[in-house]
Amino acid sequence: MKIALIGAGNLATQLGKALVRSGHEIIQVYSRTEVSAQALAAVLQTEWTVSLRQVTSEADLYIVALKDTVLDEVIPDLVQGRREAVFVHTAGSVPMTCWQGKARHYGVFYPMQTFSRARDVDFKAIPIFIEANNEVVKERLKYLAYSLSESVYELSSEQRRTLHLAAVFACNFSNYMYAVCEQMLDEAGLPFEVMNPLIDETAAKVHQLLPHEAQTGPAMRYDINVIGKHLALLAGHPEWQQLYELISKNIHHDQLRFKENKGIGV
Amino acid sequence: MKIALIGAGNLATQLGKALVRSGHEIIQVYSRTEVSAQALAAVLQTEWTVSLRQVTSEADLYIVALKDTVLDEVIPDLVQGRREAVFVHTAGSVPMTCWQGKARHYGVFYPMQTFSRARDVDFKAIPIFIEANNEVVKERLKYLAYSLSESVYELSSEQRRTLHLAAVFACNFSNYMYAVCEQMLDEAGLPFEVMNPLIDETAAKVHQLLPHEAQTGPAMRYDINVIGKHLALLAGHPEWQQLYELISKNIHHDQLRFKENKGIGV
Repeated sequence: MKIALIGAGNLATQLGKALVRSGHEIIQVYSRTEVSAQALAAVLQTEWTVSLRQVTSEADLYIVALKDTVLDEVIPDLVQGRREAVFVHTAGSVPMTCWQGKARHYGVFYPMQTFSRARDVDFKAIPIFIEANNEVVKERLKYLAYSLSESVYELSSEQRRTLHLAAVFACNFSNYMYAVCEQMLDEAGLPFEVMNPLIDETAAKVHQLLPHEAQTGPAMRYDINVIGKHLALLAGHPEWQQLYELISKNIHHDQLRFKENKGIGV
Repeated sequence: MKIALIGAGNLATQLGKALVRSGHEIIQVYSRTEVSAQALAAVLQTEWTVSLRQVTSEADLYIVALKDTVLDEVIPDLVQGRREAVFVHTAGSVPMTCWQGKARHYGVFYPMQTFSRARDVDFKAIPIFIEANNEVVKERLKYLAYSLSESVYELSSEQRRTLHLAAVFACNFSNYMYAVCEQMLDEAGLPFEVMNPLIDETAAKVHQLLPHEAQTGPAMRYDINVIGKHLALLAGHPEWQQLYELISKNIHHDQLRFKENKGIGV
C-alpha cells in the first residue's frame, strides 16, 4: 500500500515516523510550508511537494493530517482524478461526511494522542479510532491501524466528536493547569521538576480510581479557609483567580451531586 | 523517636503506613471520628483515641495532619504540658507561625502528593518540604524525611504557600479536567479507560518539555472552527462551556505572550 502524507505538522510527523517504522511505504509528503515538507520528507526519506497539483497520483492511500480549517479547501483538489484511491483524515472533530460526494473510498483514521514534533511516542499504546464508508476501506484501515497499535476501535463520527472534546479536557486543559503551575513556580523561583511526582501520581491514580473518586484538595473538602487564602494570593493574576474560582465551584458541586447519587449524607 | 499521629484522613493514613514501613514507632493515632481512628490504628497496629485530652504525653514528635480549618482549634490543647516535644503540621498552605508562642519546638513536614485512603503510594519519589524553628528540630525533621523519601527540601512558609497553590492547579484541577472527561464519555457510552494513554503521555511529556511548550489542541492552534463546534456541543452543560471558553482564551493569550517574548512573529 503506497501512502501519501498530506500535512507535515505534529501529528503527520509522528504518524509518518510510526508508519515507516512499521514498514509502510510513504511515497510523498505534502505541506503548504516548504521548510516543513522538506524536513519531514528528509526524516521519512521520501519525496515532497508544496503544490497540491503536484501531489502524486500513485498512492493507494492519502492520509490528510491538516488543520481542520483547511480540510474543506484541500479536499476538492486532492480527490480529483484519483477515483480508486482511499482518502482519510485524522481530525477527531471532523465528521466522515466531509468526503461525501467527493471521494469514492474514504474514512477516518484518528490516533488519539498529544503529538509534538520534538517528542517521539510509542504508537503501540495509542488508541486508533477508525470509520469507513465501505467494508473494503474498513478492512484496509483496520489492517493499517493494527500494524501500528494494539488498541483499534470502530467509532461513528458522532461518538468521535464527543471523544475529541473529552480529550481536549483530559489532555489540552490538564496541560494548561500544568502551565499555570509552571508560571507560578517560576515567579517563586522554584523549578518545575518538583511537580513531576505529583503530576505522575495524579495521572496514574485514574487507572485505579475514577477521576471523581480520585479528587482531592481544598475544593473537594470545601475548605473555604484555604480557598479564600488562595484567591487572595492570586490577586495579581485575575485570569487565574477566575479560573480557580470556577473550577473550585464545579468540583464542589460535582462532589455534592456524586454524594447525593450515592445517598451519602453531606 | 516515638510518634503520635494527630489525624486519620488520606494524608495521615498514607504517611502513617510509610512511617511504619520505614521502621518508625507510632504510639498513638488521634481522630475526632471514632471509625477513622480505629481503622488507622488497626492498620498501624497501635493505640487510638478520639479525645484530645487523652492524647499521649509520651511522644517525641506530634505530626498533625488535620484539615487546615481545625488546626488552630486543636493546637492549644495539644501543646499543653508537652514542652519538650516537637510539633509539626503537614498542610502546605498553613505557615509555621501557627505554632509560634504556643510550642517550643516546631516545624512543618509537607509531603507534596495527592493521597487517597484506597491507593498506596511510594514515598521514595515524593518530595518532602520541611521548615523548622530551630536547628535541632530541623535535623530531626531532615532525618525523618530522608528515611521516607529521596527528595527533601527546606522551604520557607511563603514559598510553600505558592508551591501548594501551584500544586492545586497541577493536581486537583488537572484531575477535575479528567472528571469532566469522565462524565462526557459516560454520557456517550464510552469507557474512561480509552483516555489512559493520552493522560499518561500528557503527564510524561512535561518531564521533557515545559508545559507551555508541550501545549497542543484547538485553543493552542487558535482553531476557531473547532472551538466553535465544541462550544455548541457543550450547550447542555453551561458550567463546562464557561470553563472551555475561559481556558481556551487563557491558552491562546499565553501562547501569544510566549511567542512575543521569543520574538517569533504571530
